[in-house]
Amino acid sequence: MATMYDVAKKAGVSVATVSRYFNGGYVSPAAREAIDTAVTALAYRPNHIARTLTNKSSKVIGLVVPSVTNPFFPELARAVEGEASRRGYQVVLCNAEGSVEKEQSFIDTLTASFADGIITSTGNCGEYYERNGIPVVSVDRELGTGAPHVTSDNYSGGRIVCDHLVEKGCTNLAFIGAPQESTSQKHRREGFFDEALRLGLSTPALFIADDTDEYQALYQEGQRLSNYQGIFAWNDFAAIQAIRALHQAGFAVPNHSMVVGFDDIHIAKLYTPSLSTVAQPIYEMGRAATELLLRQIDGEKLESVTYLLSVSLMVRETTKGGV
Amino acid sequence: MATMYDVAKKAGVSVATVSRYFNGGYVSPAAREAIDTAVTALAYRPNHIARTLTNKSSKVIGLVVPSVTNPFFPELARAVEGEASRRGYQVVLCNAEGSVEKEQSFIDTLTASFADGIITSTGNCGEYYERNGIPVVSVDRELGTGAPHVTSDNYSGGRIVCDHLVEKGCTNLAFIGAPQESTSQKHRREGFFDEALRLGLSTPALFIADDTDEYQALYQEGQRLSNYQGIFAWNDFAAIQAIRALHQAGFAVPNHSMVVGFDDIHIAKLYTPSLSTVAQPIYEMGRAATELLLRQIDGEKLESVTYLLSVSLMVRETTKGGV
Repeated sequence: MATMYDVAKKAGVSVATVSRYFNGGYVSPAAREAIDTAVTALAYRPNHIARTLTNKSSKVIGLVVPSVTNPFFPELARAVEGEASRRGYQVVLCNAEGSVEKEQSFIDTLTASFADGIITSTGNCGEYYERNGIPVVSVDRELGTGAPHVTSDNYSGGRIVCDHLVEKGCTNLAFIGAPQESTSQKHRREGFFDEALRLGLSTPALFIADDTDEYQALYQEGQRLSNYQGIFAWNDFAAIQAIRALHQAGFAVPNHSMVVGFDDIHIAKLYTPSLSTVAQPIYEMGRAATELLLRQIDGEKLESVTYLLSVSLMVRETTKGGV
Repeated sequence: MATMYDVAKKAGVSVATVSRYFNGGYVSPAAREAIDTAVTALAYRPNHIARTLTNKSSKVIGLVVPSVTNPFFPELARAVEGEASRRGYQVVLCNAEGSVEKEQSFIDTLTASFADGIITSTGNCGEYYERNGIPVVSVDRELGTGAPHVTSDNYSGGRIVCDHLVEKGCTNLAFIGAPQESTSQKHRREGFFDEALRLGLSTPALFIADDTDEYQALYQEGQRLSNYQGIFAWNDFAAIQAIRALHQAGFAVPNHSMVVGFDDIHIAKLYTPSLSTVAQPIYEMGRAATELLLRQIDGEKLESVTYLLSVSLMVRETTKGGV
C-alpha cells in the first residue's frame, strides 16, 4: 500500500507539503499538480486526512475513561475497539484520571481532530459535551444529558449480592464504596441496602475508602471489617484489598467473613481465594455503546434512553460454605 | 474560559463554521469577520486547533501500547501522562493489540492529527515510523531504528532472579515466555540462562505460553511446572497463572516450587501469596521517554541510544523460606 511518504517521494516534495495538501493548507500550484499526479500513479488510498476533508469523517472515535489502572476500563476499551474495528473505526483512549480539566482538553482535542464521536465512562463534563455538539454515548457512569446511556443493571446487582450473602447465613452486612459516588456505585449501594431492609436486616455498615490509590487505605481496616459477616465491595479492586486486610488482621475469607465484588475483572478468578463477584457484560456494554455512537454518527437522532444490560453473580471461593 | 461554542454563539454562526475557520477550511468573508470579532471580544484562548495552525504544535503526543489489559502498560501510560501533563501535553493512548495493521493506522491518524510525537512500546513498525518522520521514542520493547530507546535493565533482571532462586536452594530452574519473543523477554531470558550456566547449573527448562489470553493455557501445566524448584516467568501475569496452575495441581508455592515474576504490577503485592518480582522503574521509564520525546519535538537531534534503567528485586511470599 502506498503511503504519504511514497507520494512525497514520487512528487519530489516533502512529506510536510503532502500533509498540508491533504489538510487543505497552502501548497504551490506546481506542487499541487505533482502531488495529484503521484496520488493517481500510486493509487494512493485516501487515508484519515483525505477522508476527513471529503466527508468530514475521520473513522476515529474517542473513548474517555476515568482511570486506566482499574482493569475494568482497559477491558471496556478492548470491547469498544473490537466492535469499532469490525465497523472500520479506530479508537483512541483518553485517560481523564478524574480531572474535569483534562477531560475538557480531550473533548477539545477530539473535536478538533475531527473524531466522529466520543464514548465516555467518566460521568463528568455533561454540559461540555452537549455544548460541543459531537455525538456522545455514555457507558457505565451517567452523564446527566440527553446522550444515550449504556449500563449494566447495577441496582439488581446490589440486590443479588445481598440475597446471596443472606442465603449463606450472613446477617450483619457492610458495603465498601469510594468517596465520589458515581451513579454506578449509588445504584449498587441502593440495591444492596433496599434488599437488606426488605429481608428485615438492619442497614448495612458503610465503609468509604479512597480509590485514587486502588483502595490501599482499606488495608488498615481489617479489624473493623471483621465485625461483618458479609461484605459487598462496589468493585473488585476494593474487594481484593478488603480480603487482604482481613487476612492481614488474622481473619480468614470466607470462613470468618465473606466478600463479594463487582465487575468480574480478569484478576477476580485468578485471585486466591477466587473472588465471588457480579459480572458485568463488559463486551456487550462496549458493543452496544459503539453501535449507538455509530448510529448517531450516521445521522440518526437517538432518544435519551438508558440501555440496561443484565448482570450475573459469579459464585467463587470468597463465599464458599457458610458462616 | 470561552469555548468554541461561545465564539459561535457570539458570532451568530454554527460551531461547524467556527471549527472550519480554525482548521483553515472555507468560511465566507462575513462569517470570518464575525468570528474574528467574537474571538477578540471573548479573549478566546486558541485551543488545540488554533495552536496547530499557528505553530504546528498540537501539544498532543500518542502512546502506542501492545496491550491495555496487561497492567504494565496502563501503569506506563499513567507515568507518561504524569510527565506530559506537567509539560503541558496531552496523551492519547492507542492499543495496537499486537496488530501491525492497527498500529500503522494509528501512526497515520496521529500524524494526520498533528500529534507532535509518538512513544511506542510495541517494538513493531520501526520502518513505518521512520518513513513517517514524526519524532519517536521507544520504551520497553525496541524498534530497531535510530529512535532513542528507554528500557529497564532486563538482562541484569534475569541474572538477579537466577541468583535469588539459587540462594534459596533451587537447583533445577524453568523460564516461562510468550511465543513472540520481544527484546525485553529475550534479554530477561538470556540473563537468567547465562547466570545459571555461570553458576554451574544445567540450562533452565523453557515453557512457552500463549499471551493473548493472559496465559490461561499455563493453567493446564501445573504438573509439568512442579518438576522445577525455581520458576521465572517473564512477566507478572504469567507468574500468577503459574502459581494458580501449581496450586490447582496440588503443589504449594513457595514450599514446593518458588515463582518470580517481572514488572511489579500493582496486583503483584496484592496477590496471595504475594509475588516476588523484578520491579521495573515504570514511572522513571515513562518520565524519561516523555523527556526524550519532548526534546526531539523541540528540535533537538538525539543520538540513537538506549537508556538503561536499573531494576530491583522485590522479595515477597512466593520465594519465602527455602526449598
